[in-house]
Amino acid sequence: MLVTTDPRTAVSEDSGLIDTTPDEVRLLVDHAIAAMPALSDLETRAHLLDALAAATTARREELAATAERETGLGRARLDSEVARAAFQFSLFAQAVREGSFIEAMIDHAADTPLGPGPDVRRMLLPLGPVAVFGSSNFPFAFSVLGGDTASAIAAGCPVIAKAHGSHLLTSALSFEVLQAAARAVGAPSGAFGIVFGRRAGVDLVRASGISAVGFTGSLGAANVLRAAIEERDDPIPFFGELSSINPLVISAGAARVRGEQIAQGLFTSFTGSAGQLCTKPGIAFVPIGDDGQAIVDSVVSLTIDAPAQVLLNDRIRTSFTQISGRLRAAGADEVARATATSEGFTAAPSVLEVAASELGFELAEECFGPMLVIARYESIDQVEAALWRIPKSLTTTIHIEEDERAIVEKLQAVMTATSGRVVFNGFPTGVRVTWAQQHGGPWPATNSQHTSVGVTAVRRFLRPVAWQNAPHWALPKVLRDGSSSIPRRIDGVLTAPSV
Amino acid sequence: MLVTTDPRTAVSEDSGLIDTTPDEVRLLVDHAIAAMPALSDLETRAHLLDALAAATTARREELAATAERETGLGRARLDSEVARAAFQFSLFAQAVREGSFIEAMIDHAADTPLGPGPDVRRMLLPLGPVAVFGSSNFPFAFSVLGGDTASAIAAGCPVIAKAHGSHLLTSALSFEVLQAAARAVGAPSGAFGIVFGRRAGVDLVRASGISAVGFTGSLGAANVLRAAIEERDDPIPFFGELSSINPLVISAGAARVRGEQIAQGLFTSFTGSAGQLCTKPGIAFVPIGDDGQAIVDSVVSLTIDAPAQVLLNDRIRTSFTQISGRLRAAGADEVARATATSEGFTAAPSVLEVAASELGFELAEECFGPMLVIARYESIDQVEAALWRIPKSLTTTIHIEEDERAIVEKLQAVMTATSGRVVFNGFPTGVRVTWAQQHGGPWPATNSQHTSVGVTAVRRFLRPVAWQNAPHWALPKVLRDGSSSIPRRIDGVLTAPSV
Repeated sequence: MLVTTDPRTAVSEDSGLIDTTPDEVRLLVDHAIAAMPALSDLETRAHLLDALAAATTARREELAATAERETGLGRARLDSEVARAAFQFSLFAQAVREGSFIEAMIDHAADTPLGPGPDVRRMLLPLGPVAVFGSSNFPFAFSVLGGDTASAIAAGCPVIAKAHGSHLLTSALSFEVLQAAARAVGAPSGAFGIVFGRRAGVDLVRASGISAVGFTGSLGAANVLRAAIEERDDPIPFFGELSSINPLVISAGAARVRGEQIAQGLFTSFTGSAGQLCTKPGIAFVPIGDDGQAIVDSVVSLTIDAPAQVLLNDRIRTSFTQISGRLRAAGADEVARATATSEGFTAAPSVLEVAASELGFELAEECFGPMLVIARYESIDQVEAALWRIPKSLTTTIHIEEDERAIVEKLQAVMTATSGRVVFNGFPTGVRVTWAQQHGGPWPATNSQHTSVGVTAVRRFLRPVAWQNAPHWALPKVLRDGSSSIPRRIDGVLTAPSV
Repeated sequence: MLVTTDPRTAVSEDSGLIDTTPDEVRLLVDHAIAAMPALSDLETRAHLLDALAAATTARREELAATAERETGLGRARLDSEVARAAFQFSLFAQAVREGSFIEAMIDHAADTPLGPGPDVRRMLLPLGPVAVFGSSNFPFAFSVLGGDTASAIAAGCPVIAKAHGSHLLTSALSFEVLQAAARAVGAPSGAFGIVFGRRAGVDLVRASGISAVGFTGSLGAANVLRAAIEERDDPIPFFGELSSINPLVISAGAARVRGEQIAQGLFTSFTGSAGQLCTKPGIAFVPIGDDGQAIVDSVVSLTIDAPAQVLLNDRIRTSFTQISGRLRAAGADEVARATATSEGFTAAPSVLEVAASELGFELAEECFGPMLVIARYESIDQVEAALWRIPKSLTTTIHIEEDERAIVEKLQAVMTATSGRVVFNGFPTGVRVTWAQQHGGPWPATNSQHTSVGVTAVRRFLRPVAWQNAPHWALPKVLRDGSSSIPRRIDGVLTAPSV
């Protein structure tokens, strides 16, 4: 029996769902493999993605309502997350039709400086069935209906999702949406599968035939899955989005000119979704002095007045309390704490303060939940040194004024070396789903050289294959001479679509 | 003391080179990190690659002569390999100037279906210093002057090479070439480093600051390095080219129409470079019947008459003998063996025969050296089933006639799923260095979703970074609005260079 829990009340009930057995996992993988040929055609994938967008939109009310009961995330947030999931499917449909992502290349036979060279043609093919492990904090955008599923299908890979224990019913309903879309366009039922229960998740990543894993979650859970992958005969790629402290720097100029505005934005950013965002700013560098103090005072005042917030599950609540204790034991001062309540899995927003010169791994522990560490600095040199010392992140944010270019020049190297996205004069929460997005960063933020949000996420689930001296009829259509509906590189020259 | 050995005589002498100490490794990595900023400019990298091509060409005589003494590979082969290394540097210089590989993308701020979206711009940045472990069998093209070095520099990553124990003096001389080129264009000396000795290689992949490893060699050596990487605080990517059996299928039609020509080509392919090529055809599927038997007879006759061949080192010779023994113990018939000699590290070319229906992992062990396993088949179904059973490869080759399309249709799925390059009516040895090349395959061929030969090899050493709402002046030049010398994707549309 698997239970579903309302985190607002901490009351659990039988979900009606049960653990998937090892035999069922095996069968799901077999079905997924059988679905591969049907997904080999680009237009079929684009159609399916459009259908996924439509099916998600059609069930949006039910999806958001179910997730609200299971996650305690507010309805407005969940409504927009469902819309985001639908948008993601549509964007990937566009990307599949545009076709660049398959990296079609043709090098005709030629006399080269090294002698006669054969005809070589290359494109990217789907890796195979992908296991998708969604996150607790995004029941849609990073779960069964999320970016990993969308990008795997765009790549031509069937998806078997692991239902997250914090939103089992949402996952089951999401899977119904996947199936409805597949039926609507006549895609094989094996294009999608779902497993329930922790053991089934481990069985899934061990299963022969699974060719990659997309994961969003904690380092601990990632290590369990990575250990299971190590037991395979064939290692498979594990794309994990794992941990991020997301430093945010406020310059002296920005503090002076728009300190109050930044303070309000910062409060909203670290408490939004109860601080349970992988892009939550965990550390804010604030200058010592009156302008900086005014920012701290504002954030403190907003925090003290804030209501307690519902966290996703008991583990996150426990962890929130433990990390807060560890940070204080390591020397951080608690300068603000809201009033706690005892109902459900709640946490009181809080603010800690440290000296930037003291900041290291101990004081830079990621904390899911509404907590912010403010690091007071005397000089930008101190900020730069601290950024090199703390764990690497998905994002770094900087608030500066136009006349402070020297600060950016000083910090540019550390910001780009230690994170995947550099945000100017804004907040890292809110990740636009677009072509140029990069949601990923150096270890421990992710273990990947690819994004998990945005169009280029599709590259994770593809592998190149070349054909040498193949007769015209033996080549995939997109690699044949003549007109092409997608961009290709021909004899080294990037060539626009010709039809 | 590190020794260099002439495999033609098995005589060793002091190389004059010594093990690199842990402190020296640390210093090399520090120098490499310090060289990063100078390599951030695209034109600087292109200049350096051109200089590398020129320096390699200038020293070609000395390089080939040194390698001949250390590898026993023939002079003609080595001359062409030096030319290939120089060509690779030039090709990467072209690719850097073309600029697509940095995947520059600009998404302007816009109203989207999900609300206002910020300005997001993305490009690929160098990962950091790369450790390059070259192979025994390609002292140039896959060693210090090889494709991993060329693609890492193209990506903007300094390179620290591990000198291969089978060609220490060649590696040391190659490193002089790298240094000369760096001096010629004023590149920092830290752009290149080299370490000697097995322990120094392990120290290198463990060193903090090394950000990726390019490796060509055996599964055993790869596992030692992967275990060392596992001890790091931050896992780094290991791009390994490991093992390949390279099946080759001869159809009934091809056997009938051009059996003799195929037999001669096959003999040349499995004995070239003494059979020490990662793309050597290890298993040839030949139809049962007279046409197939004629091919076997021809290959047998050519093999028996062939001279014994010099292998690269004692380990490869010992392994050759052991694998031959294991295959015979597993049921393979030895149908041809040339006359052996006792001088140096030599091996007698040989041919084994098995029934395709019996072929599995045991009879499909990769063997470095001039050995071919012929698998006789009754039906294409048998071939297809065997291709699914044996280990996956860098390549699959098929010889067919125009009227045998049904065979290709039947085998296309298994050929593309189990290898990275499908060769038609030719031989897998000889890998054209070009844009569309794919030299890589599913595990155990490689553990990578990228090629190690050809232009796209550069993607291994890059990571994406996005800038959000960055002021014009804070952006890298290639991401600013206005004209561009490289292709970019702007608001989702692939856009040609404008200057």
